[in-house]
Amino acid sequence: MIETHLKPGERLDGLSSQNIYIIQNPDMFSYSLDAILLAYFAQPKGKGRGITVDLGSGTGAVGLLYAPKITGIVKLVEIQPELAEMSQRSIVTNHLQERVSVVNRDMNTIFDDIKPGSVETVLSNPPYFPLNATTKTNIDRHYELARHELTIDLPKLAQIANKLLKNNGKFYMVHRPERLTDIFAAFAERKLMIKRVQFVYGKAGREANMVLVEAIKAGKPGGVRILPPIIAYTEDNAYTSQVHEILYGDVWNK
Amino acid sequence: MIETHLKPGERLDGLSSQNIYIIQNPDMFSYSLDAILLAYFAQPKGKGRGITVDLGSGTGAVGLLYAPKITGIVKLVEIQPELAEMSQRSIVTNHLQERVSVVNRDMNTIFDDIKPGSVETVLSNPPYFPLNATTKTNIDRHYELARHELTIDLPKLAQIANKLLKNNGKFYMVHRPERLTDIFAAFAERKLMIKRVQFVYGKAGREANMVLVEAIKAGKPGGVRILPPIIAYTEDNAYTSQVHEILYGDVWNK
Repeated sequence: MIETHLKPGERLDGLSSQNIYIIQNPDMFSYSLDAILLAYFAQPKGKGRGITVDLGSGTGAVGLLYAPKITGIVKLVEIQPELAEMSQRSIVTNHLQERVSVVNRDMNTIFDDIKPGSVETVLSNPPYFPLNATTKTNIDRHYELARHELTIDLPKLAQIANKLLKNNGKFYMVHRPERLTDIFAAFAERKLMIKRVQFVYGKAGREANMVLVEAIKAGKPGGVRILPPIIAYTEDNAYTSQVHEILYGDVWNK
Repeated sequence: MIETHLKPGERLDGLSSQNIYIIQNPDMFSYSLDAILLAYFAQPKGKGRGITVDLGSGTGAVGLLYAPKITGIVKLVEIQPELAEMSQRSIVTNHLQERVSVVNRDMNTIFDDIKPGSVETVLSNPPYFPLNATTKTNIDRHYELARHELTIDLPKLAQIANKLLKNNGKFYMVHRPERLTDIFAAFAERKLMIKRVQFVYGKAGREANMVLVEAIKAGKPGGVRILPPIIAYTEDNAYTSQVHEILYGDVWNK
């Protein structure tokens, strides 16, 4: 039985395959398939000792779903106090206080809390959309911070991830395929060598709408691996068996 | 009925879907699925007027298979005299002398033959493998020139393609996914903006072993589209219906 304290407007979303439950508030921000697939895609080294950092953690979905895969600790870094507070309650709900903590801080100033070169793995599900003339930054601020590059953009994110990581530490990110040129440029500039890439297609026969990226700090150049495609939904808008297994099956521990 | 003159060791390979026949010599070099998929992937603008250049054309497969899609002319550029001569005979075999020609020349000196900024479309199926300590450059020279970056590498290829193209002209290339970082870097340096990418997977559930790339000279940044995956073979090593259609069907004119 799950014990938790929900505030008005909140709900508890769970991922049965990981036995993890996350407090959500659809009025502010909800995690989506992106977060789940990123946590699934990220591969711990050995037993997963050391520090994992989730940059821009929102309600904590990525870091919390990744925590059962490792033995080390997870630090969630989130700029929005309301979301940081919700993820703190989710940590308690999942009895993960000993291994998971939240830092309510702009990731641009994270080095006051986390030492450069001390991190094994960085995870991030950052804002996808660049700021431009058509960005409506005056609508809901919670969603805007999560969606548009208001406080963090790709080059800065790559810089922060790179500075946090030990040499050979790994950076896992989910993003939009349309930003692939920016992703390769931002990572290459920091010598974050892209090693594994997986594209997610909404349905068979459609273009990809999500990309999962693994990069290694100071890794050897070349050797990008493109993993088999993930198709999310069937023509009838049900999850494919591939994604169903990730949501409800036991593929996480294989 | 196809009339052609084959020399000893040669054979005539055809692609019935395009009604194009290409003289091959397996002892020297044979085109493969890569060339066919590149010709299929490349999209002419409008009626395909103007000049198309196939850089490193080998036996001419890419350019010859692309020719029926356009109304303009195709120039095959090939450094190896034997392969250039074979493609000249293939041009005659296909009655394409009025629109397709061969330039037997190192592409590094192509500007003696083709004016910079005069080309609508560049196609290339270049050597995939970088030179390194393990490169066995002493085995068959015909294959080595086609496989390893002996006379042309990615940055030089991108530079030549870019210089040949008009503004907004398109560069289509097939390559290996493991070189994706090098591809993005070489293209970005020349402001060849990558716009469409399609990955080819040998079989379902395997990693991609081929990538098709479309870039626009002086195109707007951002906006990469990842097309639906192509799966080449079934578990029983037969072509999938998707690839069967490209080889034998009428999908080329759709």
